[in-house]
Amino acid sequence: MTKHLMSQFDADLNEIRSRLLEMGGKVEKMLTDAMTSLVERDSELATRTIDYDHEINRLEVEIDERCLEVLALRQPTARDLRFITLALKIVTDLERIGDQCRNIAKRAWELNDLPQLKPYIDLPRMAVIAAAMVTEALDAFVRGDAQAAYAVCLRDSEVDLLNDQIQRELLTFMIEDSGTVTRAIKVTAIAKCLERVADHATNVAEMVIFMVKGKDVRHTAIIENQPQ
Amino acid sequence: MTKHLMSQFDADLNEIRSRLLEMGGKVEKMLTDAMTSLVERDSELATRTIDYDHEINRLEVEIDERCLEVLALRQPTARDLRFITLALKIVTDLERIGDQCRNIAKRAWELNDLPQLKPYIDLPRMAVIAAAMVTEALDAFVRGDAQAAYAVCLRDSEVDLLNDQIQRELLTFMIEDSGTVTRAIKVTAIAKCLERVADHATNVAEMVIFMVKGKDVRHTAIIENQPQ
Repeated sequence: MTKHLMSQFDADLNEIRSRLLEMGGKVEKMLTDAMTSLVERDSELATRTIDYDHEINRLEVEIDERCLEVLALRQPTARDLRFITLALKIVTDLERIGDQCRNIAKRAWELNDLPQLKPYIDLPRMAVIAAAMVTEALDAFVRGDAQAAYAVCLRDSEVDLLNDQIQRELLTFMIEDSGTVTRAIKVTAIAKCLERVADHATNVAEMVIFMVKGKDVRHTAIIENQPQ
Repeated sequence: MTKHLMSQFDADLNEIRSRLLEMGGKVEKMLTDAMTSLVERDSELATRTIDYDHEINRLEVEIDERCLEVLALRQPTARDLRFITLALKIVTDLERIGDQCRNIAKRAWELNDLPQLKPYIDLPRMAVIAAAMVTEALDAFVRGDAQAAYAVCLRDSEVDLLNDQIQRELLTFMIEDSGTVTRAIKVTAIAKCLERVADHATNVAEMVIFMVKGKDVRHTAIIENQPQ
């Protein structure tokens, strides 16, 4: 490969890398907006967030196409090939995180029409951790940092614990006053969405560990045996 | 490309295709076993099903590696490139379905130690639909059949409706008798796992539609606006 081709190829990889980070940033903004629309009872923001999913979907298609172009034109091998195929997988996770954010905004929009059940304390905490996991998983990918990716996997159990706590708290509400059921179900659905955001971030992080360390590390006991 | 290379390449694609189907078959068996371990209260089968997840994980790594090899050695373009990169994405969904089956088996294992809450009627129905969706999505992929893939997307709402029904029924149990809470939470968790299996099948089907019809079809209103 000539030097010219090499640097063009590096430019392609850098472009994929930066487009993925751009998509990650937009997904995180979507998550923040979805949660703000819930906490501040801002239905107009909820509607905008639901619509914003189209932007995430558009980015998914674009980055996918760019990866296919680079695969077809540059025919990368070894590490670069692994990088691009991983980018293809990560973009799918980011798009599905966007779907979860859209679902959160939909539930927020519905909840905003009803009296507030209780102040939200644990849900925003869950969202902050989940958003950080998304950022850190993407950073780990870009830097090829298995240690950072591993730290993301470990944080998944924090989110799971908060989710369990929320599910139990809302269940108590429902048992004590069946008039809260409709709202409590929507709030538990939001907690579930956040748990899934964290799951996607964990999936990305696991794939990064695999990219860096090779096949002997994916699906190791450490990752698989985390609390569900 | 010589005729010899062409046919070798076709053999590679066929191998990826059949390995994916093999993995799909094993994932479906895992789902059936997980549900049997629940319905027949067979904890020994639950344990075997939990262990079986390693087989699914092994297949994921193997098929991924095979796809990378074919990409590196054969440098496919256009339709074949799209097929292989889609295979890479589908294998991830299948592996995550395996994770959900493992989670179902874990909950079954725990439930089998407690008195039975109620006979399971809707859960097995959900599982049958979810398993059929997985089979049909993979068939649609192998045959490049967008119509069949579209039918899978439509079935997702059946599963969502059953899930809502189960969630509400179990909630009634919990409200009426708080002694059922621990068990009811585990059963709702299983329903959620089944819903996620159906979601993964739907994701595969959506990607197949995209592979066949191109970028204008992915994320269309018809698919995106299905009930959540």
